Amino acid sequence: MNYSKTFHFPIQIYYEDTDFSGVVYHPNFLKYFERAREHVIGADILAALWQDQGLGFAVYRSDMLCHDGVEFADIIDVRTQFFFESKYRTVWKQEIWRPNASKPAVTATIEMVCMNKARQLAPMTPSLLALLSQSFDSVVTT
Amino acid sequence: MNYSKTFHFPIQIYYEDTDFSGVVYHPNFLKYFERAREHVIGADILAALWQDQGLGFAVYRSDMLCHDGVEFADIIDVRTQFFFESKYRTVWKQEIWRPNASKPAVTATIEMVCMNKARQLAPMTPSLLALLSQSFDSVVTT
Amino acid sequence: MNYSKTFHFPIQIYYEDTDFSGVVYHPNFLKYFERAREHVIGADILAALWQDQGLGFAVYRSDMLCHDGVEFADIIDVRTQFFFESKYRTVWKQEIWRPNASKPAVTATIEMVCMNKARQLAPMTPSLLALLSQSFDSVVTT
Amino acid sequence: MNYSKTFHFPIQIYYEDTDFSGVVYHPNFLKYFERAREHVIGADILAALWQDQGLGFAVYRSDMLCHDGVEFADIIDVRTQFFFESKYRTVWKQEIWRPNASKPAVTATIEMVCMNKARQLAPMTPSLLALLSQSFDSVVTT
Repeated sequence: MNYSKTFHFPIQIYYEDTDFSGVVYHPNFLKYFERAREHVIGADILAALWQDQGLGFAVYRSDMLCHDGVEFADIIDVRTQFFFESKYRTVWKQEIWRPNASKPAVTATIEMVCMNKARQLAPMTPSLLALLSQSFDSVVTT
Repeated sequence: MNYSKTFHFPIQIYYEDTDFSGVVYHPNFLKYFERAREHVIGADILAALWQDQGLGFAVYRSDMLCHDGVEFADIIDVRTQFFFESKYRTVWKQEIWRPNASKPAVTATIEMVCMNKARQLAPMTPSLLALLSQSFDSVVTT
Repeated sequence: MNYSKTFHFPIQIYYEDTDFSGVVYHPNFLKYFERAREHVIGADILAALWQDQGLGFAVYRSDMLCHDGVEFADIIDVRTQFFFESKYRTVWKQEIWRPNASKPAVTATIEMVCMNKARQLAPMTPSLLALLSQSFDSVVTT
Repeated sequence: MNYSKTFHFPIQIYYEDTDFSGVVYHPNFLKYFERAREHVIGADILAALWQDQGLGFAVYRSDMLCHDGVEFADIIDVRTQFFFESKYRTVWKQEIWRPNASKPAVTATIEMVCMNKARQLAPMTPSLLALLSQSFDSVVTT
């Protein structure tokens, strides 16, 4: 398994993110993970992919572990790595870190599939594969 | 101004609706008002209108007053009346009532416009106008 | 593993639930699962548990598989079963079924822990355990 | 009426922000306005105000006009000005601008009140008033 480099994306926690228990409402973590993935690929690239080629990404599986509560006014660091499983699938390993934490508050493995507008599996385009491949550190093979 | 009859729609308040201050996060009230409007018109009718005729409703203006906090586990009563301003526009007077309250917790006036998929103003269809007209009590004129 | 009976909870899909791809935005499925769990336990019981005893439930793990898109105006059936793992933990097997479907659109296994307001693990109260135990069909053993 | 200077706050539009009509779901605009207000005051200051003094801000009134749809991948500019109505109340004039637009997509007037944890009106603290007063351009009076 060849993982991409780690991407960092900061997110501020607002009123809207919390619930009356005082911490972030857990489905919102999936939103943060998606925002971070959109920044890895590029929202403008995702928009063009949808409009020009009718392709998009859908979450097939998300397995998330919540180790610690995240609080209002926190600025979290969303850490993201991914690998290619096939030309249809990418798997994303993502974590949420609170400021000054020694371990992640939330960890997740999220499997994405590429789909057309009829919601059928579709291969990622060569240009998208090329773009995403830039996220991998160069490997020297001899 | 000829208002429709009053529609009642109950909504349960869940974790997802609150924020860390302990009460409902205010933008969610606009969601409840929209759910109630969708039940007046019929979600299946709205879905068909979009798919078959490319028409939908958009909020042009929402003026909302929050008088009282709404709490987790409340079952609120969303009260809805509307009137036709033109064949393009409807105006909705909506209120949120907590259980056993003597006055509404939230009140709003919401102006909706009918639009096509290019987001241009479009007249409501005759069948939609006929449907919505059934919400008005018959008026006896002599 | 002794599973509870299956609970059914209907949820209507509104505008707010979808995204521009035309189907339900995936983190919302976690909201629906939670609403259904709240109905199994009782929102008023959860509210009293928090206010009177400072206890609440937190999602420790959610593992979700999205098999099919769910659309605007669908009325889904959320099916819920759970079992006790310990006096601190319950595990919930939940599914989302679209109307007339032959298989679930979404399936999930969700692990809940009971916590106090300091976010430390706390045992469920005897009355809560007794309440939840009523969800199990009587087992005849000979 | 003495308005503060104009604050600018950029927000990226993600999947989560849109609905199946293809544009931002209107209650989300109220979220963006609140995020922008939180950045004017400072989320850490709001968090401390709540924890140390039991004070928070609640929306009393929001009057919003939606002139234009906002789309996925847009990076909007939220423009914010406010004035003091009393030591209990601030009024916020906020706008959402799409990239390269010649007029705002959404405009709103939002009235905030300062409240204690019992949800009673409370005056803003002197330090908060002093902080917010820094947002006003110096006025030369002769």
